[in-house]
Amino acid sequence: MTNPELQNKAINTLRFLSADGVQKANSGHPGLPMGAAAMAFTIWTRHLRHNPRNPKWMGRDRFILSGGHGSMLLYSLLHLTGYDLSLEQLQNFRQWGSLTPGHPEYGWTPGVELTTGPLGAGLSSGVGMAIAAAHLAAVFNKPGHELLDSYIYAIVTDGDLMEGVASEAASLAGHLSLGRLIYLYDDNKISIDGSTDLAFTEDRAKRFEAYGWHIQHVADGNDVEAIDAAIKVAKADPRPSLILCRTIIGFGSPNRQGTQKAHGEPLGDDELNAAKDNLGWPKEPRFLIPEDVQVFYRKAVERGRELEADWKMRREAYARLFPELGAEFNRRLIMGKLPEGWEATIPTFPVDPKGMATRAASGKVINAIAAKLPELLGGSADLAPSNNTKIDGLPAFQKDSHAGRNFHFGVREHAMGSILNGMAVYGGLIPYGATFLVFADYMRAAVRLAALSHYPSIFIFTHDSIGLGEDGPTHQPVEHLTSLRLIPNLVVLRPADANETAQAWKVAISRRDGPTVLALTRQNLPTLESPNLVEKGAYVLKDFGKPEIILMASGSEVSLILDAAQKLAEEGKGVRVVSFPSWELFEKQDEAYRESVLPKSIQKRLAVEAGTSLGWERYAKSTISIDRFGASAPAKVIFEKLGFTVENVIAKAKEL
Amino acid sequence: MTNPELQNKAINTLRFLSADGVQKANSGHPGLPMGAAAMAFTIWTRHLRHNPRNPKWMGRDRFILSGGHGSMLLYSLLHLTGYDLSLEQLQNFRQWGSLTPGHPEYGWTPGVELTTGPLGAGLSSGVGMAIAAAHLAAVFNKPGHELLDSYIYAIVTDGDLMEGVASEAASLAGHLSLGRLIYLYDDNKISIDGSTDLAFTEDRAKRFEAYGWHIQHVADGNDVEAIDAAIKVAKADPRPSLILCRTIIGFGSPNRQGTQKAHGEPLGDDELNAAKDNLGWPKEPRFLIPEDVQVFYRKAVERGRELEADWKMRREAYARLFPELGAEFNRRLIMGKLPEGWEATIPTFPVDPKGMATRAASGKVINAIAAKLPELLGGSADLAPSNNTKIDGLPAFQKDSHAGRNFHFGVREHAMGSILNGMAVYGGLIPYGATFLVFADYMRAAVRLAALSHYPSIFIFTHDSIGLGEDGPTHQPVEHLTSLRLIPNLVVLRPADANETAQAWKVAISRRDGPTVLALTRQNLPTLESPNLVEKGAYVLKDFGKPEIILMASGSEVSLILDAAQKLAEEGKGVRVVSFPSWELFEKQDEAYRESVLPKSIQKRLAVEAGTSLGWERYAKSTISIDRFGASAPAKVIFEKLGFTVENVIAKAKEL
Repeated sequence: MTNPELQNKAINTLRFLSADGVQKANSGHPGLPMGAAAMAFTIWTRHLRHNPRNPKWMGRDRFILSGGHGSMLLYSLLHLTGYDLSLEQLQNFRQWGSLTPGHPEYGWTPGVELTTGPLGAGLSSGVGMAIAAAHLAAVFNKPGHELLDSYIYAIVTDGDLMEGVASEAASLAGHLSLGRLIYLYDDNKISIDGSTDLAFTEDRAKRFEAYGWHIQHVADGNDVEAIDAAIKVAKADPRPSLILCRTIIGFGSPNRQGTQKAHGEPLGDDELNAAKDNLGWPKEPRFLIPEDVQVFYRKAVERGRELEADWKMRREAYARLFPELGAEFNRRLIMGKLPEGWEATIPTFPVDPKGMATRAASGKVINAIAAKLPELLGGSADLAPSNNTKIDGLPAFQKDSHAGRNFHFGVREHAMGSILNGMAVYGGLIPYGATFLVFADYMRAAVRLAALSHYPSIFIFTHDSIGLGEDGPTHQPVEHLTSLRLIPNLVVLRPADANETAQAWKVAISRRDGPTVLALTRQNLPTLESPNLVEKGAYVLKDFGKPEIILMASGSEVSLILDAAQKLAEEGKGVRVVSFPSWELFEKQDEAYRESVLPKSIQKRLAVEAGTSLGWERYAKSTISIDRFGASAPAKVIFEKLGFTVENVIAKAKEL
Repeated sequence: MTNPELQNKAINTLRFLSADGVQKANSGHPGLPMGAAAMAFTIWTRHLRHNPRNPKWMGRDRFILSGGHGSMLLYSLLHLTGYDLSLEQLQNFRQWGSLTPGHPEYGWTPGVELTTGPLGAGLSSGVGMAIAAAHLAAVFNKPGHELLDSYIYAIVTDGDLMEGVASEAASLAGHLSLGRLIYLYDDNKISIDGSTDLAFTEDRAKRFEAYGWHIQHVADGNDVEAIDAAIKVAKADPRPSLILCRTIIGFGSPNRQGTQKAHGEPLGDDELNAAKDNLGWPKEPRFLIPEDVQVFYRKAVERGRELEADWKMRREAYARLFPELGAEFNRRLIMGKLPEGWEATIPTFPVDPKGMATRAASGKVINAIAAKLPELLGGSADLAPSNNTKIDGLPAFQKDSHAGRNFHFGVREHAMGSILNGMAVYGGLIPYGATFLVFADYMRAAVRLAALSHYPSIFIFTHDSIGLGEDGPTHQPVEHLTSLRLIPNLVVLRPADANETAQAWKVAISRRDGPTVLALTRQNLPTLESPNLVEKGAYVLKDFGKPEIILMASGSEVSLILDAAQKLAEEGKGVRVVSFPSWELFEKQDEAYRESVLPKSIQKRLAVEAGTSLGWERYAKSTISIDRFGASAPAKVIFEKLGFTVENVIAKAKEL
């Protein structure tokens, strides 16, 4: 046990580094760090296994500050325990280019495990991490050789618990009995509007019990021993654990603690000084780190080095005993490389006028590559038969079958997105998740976070247009393709047939620095003869004579323009047919390539897509598109009524 | 009590009208109608107060089929009880132009109270309806004159309960103790992937108890008396009620009942016939309605007429006793009209270079118009101090203060959106709800449903750009403005100053056939001298000389281009400054007006907006925009770094 005086100083160091950072930035949230400092202290100095000098050490536990607005608490911990984050960075909190942005950003600051701030995101992606940990443990661990035994710790807040995505994820975590999840709830009874009594009076413990969680209460969130004891009990329990710690927001601030005033604004110099007086802390210098405190926290460096060295030794022993698994461990978890020759498993499909739905093709691709890519795993938000996501012959990931690679996420789209993100960032996995394209709206916040944080999640969105037919406008995406294209760093692919689908999967699997969306049809599409050029984003599918008109389309509309082009050619027109599966990939090509596909000299250009027209102005002069909601009817009828016919394409092309 | 034999026939009529409809369409979901027919029967024939000949009768109860995929059940009920929905419409289920689309659509089919299908939507919007009912009752009811005493009934499903939005809404409903919510849970243990044991094993009753709901169980979901008794108990309980009814999906279908095969596809002729045999139903004709069943259900017409006539008498008595309230009741609930002269209360703001944030202006507008518009009410998803949504001097809507007009939605954006929709559609209210623009992503599904269903919800999204500064990219919207503009029938307004904000509110309040988004700044903006032309979508704010260049911008960038234009003018350039608060409103203007603002003869056009560039191609040749994520730093610094400076606007303008 730490000397109590030093321990108290160490906790106050967290409080005041955080409050000083917020004060210097004149922006930020002092309340959470001051209230939850003892919780963070207990996790970080008594439980968390990590190596500050190698933040990517695969054997580490994970820590998530789900209330990302308390970022200074995390930055303080990272600095103090010896991560590559200088005191100067803490002093540059929330400044342009600093490593200490307003909310923690994965990939930007060493040691930050997840981007958090949008509430519920950390809590729910942590469930994904716990799934990843459980799966990898099931795949790799051998009795006596438990190389993978991470715990996922988080500090979660009122706001997290109120968000729907948290409910979804917590319910699934309970169902799956993810025992390595240990969440400390910063139960401070304050949110931005004031007391949680204003809107949040549910029985939180009972609710999480209903989900199947193990519940504990810590009456005083500053009581390190009580928190420590609760974490120990949580570790031993097979269920996910929620430890409700009663805390005081802004603890120490004499005039603001326990109120919303401590939450989201700097204390101000006077109150900050008063808080320091109150807790027996020197008012100056700001950003004070007492030497003994520094020494104490920096032990993490040595401890981390030892932990990793020990783990490395155990890994070497493991590799000797289990050479094949050891090599696979090395490939997936250490090198993070795809297996040699995996691309050869991607199927090709023969030209076939009847063809198949691209969702069906996607299912075939998944099944064709799954054996060679054991890291590929995923499922659907209760639409597996419609999304074609199942890997045949493999079990589901369930409570008692963690090696399973098929996931039943339930009707929980947002949590699915968030969980995929947690799985993707954990390492060693290529997770995918599926729903209908229209329900991308439910999980948009998770898709955005993946893009912002460069998580390589794969989102499969089937039933990608009015082509889904009778289910009607509530289920027919119209604006969704382009609304996804708007998200920076997201690659959206809408393949035109089975072969483009296979190539789209190749793009998605290869893309390890950001998320990919595959938009797939419900309805059958002819399988076309086409070059292998999906990765270019757009390409010349066919030239009929010397082109004077360009017809371009994505997905299900490509075969339509091909038919129209054929007829136009029969009338003596020169027509180019461009298949345009991905705007983002096309924009990444050099100008010469782009000019070769869409020469400036040909301005008669028509874009055909069963979605909103906005944005096609970039490439085309005219569009056949859908700037309204869809309708309930058989797909063929809707396409016809909304102008997606060979005749209309020809007419519009002639108008140009 | 109904004759048991007739009752059984009446229930089977629901089952087989539904299954026949699905079979004829060769598309749809027979399982829910067959399994939940007795639940629906009990609500509709023993409890629901409604008038089929006046579906808009204000005194009615509301019925929501939250599992909208079971739409044929609702259509069958509407037809049988005498709504203006012919048998022919039922036979045209899911066909182009029919009144019986795949999922129920509000405003399309008489008697459909809410658009449902996207799961969780009905359940959560029902909470909004219950809020509306409670509020209006508190405002209008007098002892002995309870004109407003509606119950909100719903049939909710596994999928609904799994969705996060349902958790958010249910938690708030429990907090607010909305006793008139009576939800019957179609607990059939089947979802699309198979048994709910695959992903949904939480203790649902306990979870809803934790939210503060009153829980009952009905062991046999075909037991009308048990359901009836439970509803009676629910009505007497002051809490919202969940009645868990154990049902069998596809009840009657010998080979499919109780399995996911009954869920989402037609039974097929053979199995349909077998089901009819099984339940003693004639195989032919399809769409059979036995005459005694027809007579039985049609009693609803007479009963509805009586109910409304009685209510009308009571309303007249009320109007005599309380003439002012009676007039107000008439205006708000019967005529659905805004009060005379309300527009005169909209404030104007003096020209002021310092100005104010448009969120602050919005707060002032709300407070200026609130007294004259008692139907205006709303709040924030726990960001009231930041969103400036509070109506000063009025209480919050809470469990014991239903007359309150300030809402604490908690950190529950999606439920807030859904609840606003329910409030908006209930009648007599103009609800608004607020969060940060970036969190529009959390509630996008609700915004879309509002647009699709013409709900006049008002969404206030503040902190509308990188201008929010230090909170960083997780909180900075970039793609959000345009992603909202993509949604058909949504009007998005981004006002440039306090006066445009006031005019934007006028547009939003006046717009009663669809939702409106107000995108507002965190930071101060100069208050400009400007004509009152926001409703035109875009207008000439100022011409400097004879224009050769057009600078256009929305929101916070308008004052920037104004400054740049001033400098360009000083250099002798002719510059037009166009303020462009709303694309949708501009597109609604006639061509003459559009040409007058953006003459074809002036093609040197630069658009400046702190968001993604996509779509501005429609109006401009070049943009200053943000096709990346933002950054954490003071707002001024980010604007500068990303090119939002007078110098850069001038440089880009000169490049044209």
